[in-house]
Amino acid sequence: MPEEVASDENVIYVGKKNVMSYVLAVVTQFNMGSLEVHLKARGRAISRAADVTQIVKNRFIPSLAIKGINITTEELTSEDGRLNKVSSMDILMTK
Amino acid sequence: MPEEVASDENVIYVGKKNVMSYVLAVVTQFNMGSLEVHLKARGRAISRAADVTQIVKNRFIPSLAIKGINITTEELTSEDGRLNKVSSMDILMTK
Repeated sequence: MPEEVASDENVIYVGKKNVMSYVLAVVTQFNMGSLEVHLKARGRAISRAADVTQIVKNRFIPSLAIKGINITTEELTSEDGRLNKVSSMDILMTK
Repeated sequence: MPEEVASDENVIYVGKKNVMSYVLAVVTQFNMGSLEVHLKARGRAISRAADVTQIVKNRFIPSLAIKGINITTEELTSEDGRLNKVSSMDILMTK
């Protein structure tokens, strides 16, 4: 059983779980009729999000196209109250 | 002194060095007159490439724009002769 993955409407949040969990979440979203799916990731998970797009395209949905990629900076407050900047990526996919 | 960073004409290859090495390589390329600079990264270095774009934009070149991002799959032969697939990202920046 794949692990449960956080998702809003058409948005999959890529974190520290196994890459296949996110792959299956994306494929499921498209199979449920979504025309577009966003992948969102921060920090080191950005590399994993890139992997997700490639595995979905190479193994499950050959027609997958990346419509846009946006990189921004988010500010997160750490436990000791300090403000940390972290890169964030949003990948918009269509099939 | 920043570490030496691999670069071709207008292309910076992001690997395992300190993120600031790549930031300075990008800033230097633009200062030498390049109108466009590519950042290329594979695997886990993809997250670092995203960080490079944000640090260049937030600290050095506020007008920096990301003109396009391309994610592909590359096949690499490992030492034991096996073929491994790895995600690769190319970020095209202008200022």
